[in-house]
Amino acid sequence: QEPVTTIPVQPLAEPAKPEVREIGFKVKSRGGFSIESDDGSAGFDIEGRTVFDVNYFDGFYNQGGDGATGSESELRRARFGFNGWYSKDWNYTFLVNLAEDTRNIDSTATTIDTAMVQYTGFKYADLTVGRFKRPVSLDILTSSNWQPLTELAYIWELAPANDITKFSVQASKLFEFGNKSGLVYQLALSDAYAEDEPTKSGKDHYALNGRLVYTPWVDKGRMLHLGLSYGDQNPGDGATTNVRSRLGVHGINKLTLAASQPIASDSQFGFEAAGIFGPMSFQAEYQNRSIGGAEGNADIEVSGYYLTGTYTLTGESRGYKRKDGRFDKIVPSNQRYGAIELVARIQSATVSPQGGTEVSADAYTVGANWYPIRAVKLALNVTQATVDGLDTGAAGDSGRAVVGRVQWVF
Amino acid sequence: QEPVTTIPVQPLAEPAKPEVREIGFKVKSRGGFSIESDDGSAGFDIEGRTVFDVNYFDGFYNQGGDGATGSESELRRARFGFNGWYSKDWNYTFLVNLAEDTRNIDSTATTIDTAMVQYTGFKYADLTVGRFKRPVSLDILTSSNWQPLTELAYIWELAPANDITKFSVQASKLFEFGNKSGLVYQLALSDAYAEDEPTKSGKDHYALNGRLVYTPWVDKGRMLHLGLSYGDQNPGDGATTNVRSRLGVHGINKLTLAASQPIASDSQFGFEAAGIFGPMSFQAEYQNRSIGGAEGNADIEVSGYYLTGTYTLTGESRGYKRKDGRFDKIVPSNQRYGAIELVARIQSATVSPQGGTEVSADAYTVGANWYPIRAVKLALNVTQATVDGLDTGAAGDSGRAVVGRVQWVF
Amino acid sequence: QEPVTTIPVQPLAEPAKPEVREIGFKVKSRGGFSIESDDGSAGFDIEGRTVFDVNYFDGFYNQGGDGATGSESELRRARFGFNGWYSKDWNYTFLVNLAEDTRNIDSTATTIDTAMVQYTGFKYADLTVGRFKRPVSLDILTSSNWQPLTELAYIWELAPANDITKFSVQASKLFEFGNKSGLVYQLALSDAYAEDEPTKSGKDHYALNGRLVYTPWVDKGRMLHLGLSYGDQNPGDGATTNVRSRLGVHGINKLTLAASQPIASDSQFGFEAAGIFGPMSFQAEYQNRSIGGAEGNADIEVSGYYLTGTYTLTGESRGYKRKDGRFDKIVPSNQRYGAIELVARIQSATVSPQGGTEVSADAYTVGANWYPIRAVKLALNVTQATVDGLDTGAAGDSGRAVVGRVQWVF
Repeated sequence: QEPVTTIPVQPLAEPAKPEVREIGFKVKSRGGFSIESDDGSAGFDIEGRTVFDVNYFDGFYNQGGDGATGSESELRRARFGFNGWYSKDWNYTFLVNLAEDTRNIDSTATTIDTAMVQYTGFKYADLTVGRFKRPVSLDILTSSNWQPLTELAYIWELAPANDITKFSVQASKLFEFGNKSGLVYQLALSDAYAEDEPTKSGKDHYALNGRLVYTPWVDKGRMLHLGLSYGDQNPGDGATTNVRSRLGVHGINKLTLAASQPIASDSQFGFEAAGIFGPMSFQAEYQNRSIGGAEGNADIEVSGYYLTGTYTLTGESRGYKRKDGRFDKIVPSNQRYGAIELVARIQSATVSPQGGTEVSADAYTVGANWYPIRAVKLALNVTQATVDGLDTGAAGDSGRAVVGRVQWVF
Repeated sequence: QEPVTTIPVQPLAEPAKPEVREIGFKVKSRGGFSIESDDGSAGFDIEGRTVFDVNYFDGFYNQGGDGATGSESELRRARFGFNGWYSKDWNYTFLVNLAEDTRNIDSTATTIDTAMVQYTGFKYADLTVGRFKRPVSLDILTSSNWQPLTELAYIWELAPANDITKFSVQASKLFEFGNKSGLVYQLALSDAYAEDEPTKSGKDHYALNGRLVYTPWVDKGRMLHLGLSYGDQNPGDGATTNVRSRLGVHGINKLTLAASQPIASDSQFGFEAAGIFGPMSFQAEYQNRSIGGAEGNADIEVSGYYLTGTYTLTGESRGYKRKDGRFDKIVPSNQRYGAIELVARIQSATVSPQGGTEVSADAYTVGANWYPIRAVKLALNVTQATVDGLDTGAAGDSGRAVVGRVQWVF
Repeated sequence: QEPVTTIPVQPLAEPAKPEVREIGFKVKSRGGFSIESDDGSAGFDIEGRTVFDVNYFDGFYNQGGDGATGSESELRRARFGFNGWYSKDWNYTFLVNLAEDTRNIDSTATTIDTAMVQYTGFKYADLTVGRFKRPVSLDILTSSNWQPLTELAYIWELAPANDITKFSVQASKLFEFGNKSGLVYQLALSDAYAEDEPTKSGKDHYALNGRLVYTPWVDKGRMLHLGLSYGDQNPGDGATTNVRSRLGVHGINKLTLAASQPIASDSQFGFEAAGIFGPMSFQAEYQNRSIGGAEGNADIEVSGYYLTGTYTLTGESRGYKRKDGRFDKIVPSNQRYGAIELVARIQSATVSPQGGTEVSADAYTVGANWYPIRAVKLALNVTQATVDGLDTGAAGDSGRAVVGRVQWVF
């Protein structure tokens, strides 16, 4: 289905040195690099992404700008890494993140996004060790490359779920019932409470995250997904919390929705539903986080939801990765014009400190994505948001933002 | 012309899986890695460089050394990255810089040197988005790997032109008049004023840089290049400037040629001329920068020029990249002894704060480069410099420096 | 001996473009990537490693924990890099280290582990320039990947030998006497004293390190190694020293065995003995460091030794790299169960400030390593240690530690 594809394929090798058993292999380049042995038992990929954003925003999104329209352009993401597998049961991923959180071009904040080793040889549990995304929600596990909108729903910033931890151990498995139905479980222990100071003596505190996904049927271009999740962040002594968010526009500084305070407990649960019906898809999630205050501080309730719908004008379906219970990429079928996807989302979140001022935020976003080739995505998002209970000074309670993006994934 | 070349070339592939269209590809290694499809429509490179310097210097170059000879050895550059292209019209580059500006081996300053996506499908403009070198001058756009001397002329440190910005958008194109003549235009908008503090709210300030290059004739080993450039750095409120330079020796701390002060405007223009005549080449540039002081501070005029000549004893010509209007590498034609290049440069720069003390610096440099193989360059530079109007204490007004370099480009 | 090996091998290429001389090449993937021309004259590797540790410890190892058992899990090492060679005489290595010394997941400390260029074309000296491990001891030069125990003997933390310097120049060579016997010399000048502040003016101070290794016989699975080393750290004015160690457990903060103080001199010498006898190996080293105090501070004597024995249950021998005089990897011969190695070590170190309190530490470690495939190593170490003369408060003079590790090398 890709008539002008640039997939180079290797012939089976002829014997060159008789003492080495020779097998064929394939090398692929679509502007990146991938190698795989013919029998699939070993392989190696170099992967990377660069994402460039231009943001325009007004109202409460531009508090430093006296109500005028603000702007910010940025190198939003720069990541590269390696992954490989060997003897079918073992694989690893190693992904480095160079995004510049402080916006200072002279001191890029390098972080290890993913560094994990996985063993998949057991019947009832794939074991994963290292640093990787915790099993919290459909939206979080879906790669940022293939999110339908430029930013995640902001409920994920308001819950610690989105933070990659220092170190995790996970058991997970997909159980298939026929080809059309499946159940995935994911259970992770993580060190440490992500907002806590790292320590080198004393005992680690382990956070627990579990997720269960049932897919009544999954087929090419046809899928229904139902999920639920639970997490206990198990904060240690002296832990504090931040409840902050950019409310959907990365080009601004985070807004504080509840002041930082000492906490004694921190848990959350969520529900997920999603579906793919040919060129259409939807996904919706609800998340609730309960923070227990320590040292006389108040408890805080955080909750929110989003509902996203997509429609691919050019007919392609979004991909879905059964093993992880998450969405995957769109592959353009037309080699000349690529794929075009229209997207809409509504979202809402509420932060309620016990006895304090409740803060809430609602936002509507519409967007369009154009994939001229499979490696490139051009995106345009328009957001209209309102906040309630937040001190925004002269900037007002509503704000608009337009975000343009160019993304290359190799 | 490379009889013992190590360019591995792939045969056209035989069918392995009938459902995939198979095409041949080439893999290259000259101590690095490169893959390209036979039809040239897709490819991927891993690139990198490591540069090691030893510096000896005296006089004003060694102000901390009480007039004695000082020395500094350093890992001058360590960069690696990826670039690729797909479907002819799209390409990207992603290059990470690990050089240690602070000289502290425990905290390397990682920066993103280049991260860009380019679309070349339009007839009158190639569009580039991201972080990359701005179109300021021949010397700056030429890769540091293939500079004839170990350091750029110091006029480029004295103008902000050399700074890579946070984010740029560029339109550029080469128009060819026959095979022998061409005109290149480059026009870039950049965010933000490089010496300004990055902000996340408020409006971005965009710098403008434009460059025009006319090459009356370009042929193998024969080229004439004429160029001019203009830039307006458009500094925002509260911007300050630094006019500092190492005056050609990287192993020392920067010398302050004009004190940092608030500024209201900052613009520059320049002229370029260069030529290749078989084993000989020359390049000369003049640059003028006008800084307008803010808050009662003085205006500052910065100007300077350099003239460099090279002669390749072993007969090779320097390369030239028409599309970018810049010099390219020397490829040794002798496999046994490689290529040897002799170089000389004169340069001068003047910094004149209105009503203040004018500072000027003049330097003469001679050097030799040996490329034993195409990946390796050994360089030796000797510089004699004098400064006027700069407080150098007991170290005096003149200084000498010897720089030895080992460079590997993969 | 690897019946199900996944080494893909390329046929000799057929002519595709007549103007290019075509030669065959080999590509390898064992979960990583390697390419080599058929004639061996050029090649390129991508290498990397991720190491994940979980530590449990009590007694003096957990001083912050009031005597209870402490724990720490961490991403112990995350490194990647490139190396290549060209025209047989030239090669380079470029290795980046992302381990998180400060344990803060938001600011990984990126350092350049190795960046070197080597020329091996001279008869009596291979020349190496850049950053690399100094020739100090068998234990230090052996890759951390293939150490029999999870941490080096702690004498190496107590001597500066373990520190990679900013910049080194080395001459070294292996002289072979028949196939069975050999002598290696290594001599390095390094800038600068590793614990000194880096400076950009003034004169560099160069440390000297030399090592001599004699191997009476080396054969497959049979080796005897005898070595001696000397180093003068040549500290500059104002240099101070730290004599600190984690005493074998990386999950804790370093313990101070002698207070930091100004020093005038710092030299060391050592003896090495090691052997491989089929599945058995041993290695033992003694190291002595003499620190001369400056500004009226005391001299400090540091000395220590370790003895390690290993036995591979599955019969494989440890590898040995003659050219560098160091141990190399174990390659599992059984494709189904891999290799299992048992290890034991005793070690002791003493720190004696002249006229001050002598501090000593003794430790016994037993461990097991399982290499299920050649890329993966699972390790378990148990250590029992006692300290004397160190103020450990209520935590006591003895401590135990259990360390579990998962390692992937690609």
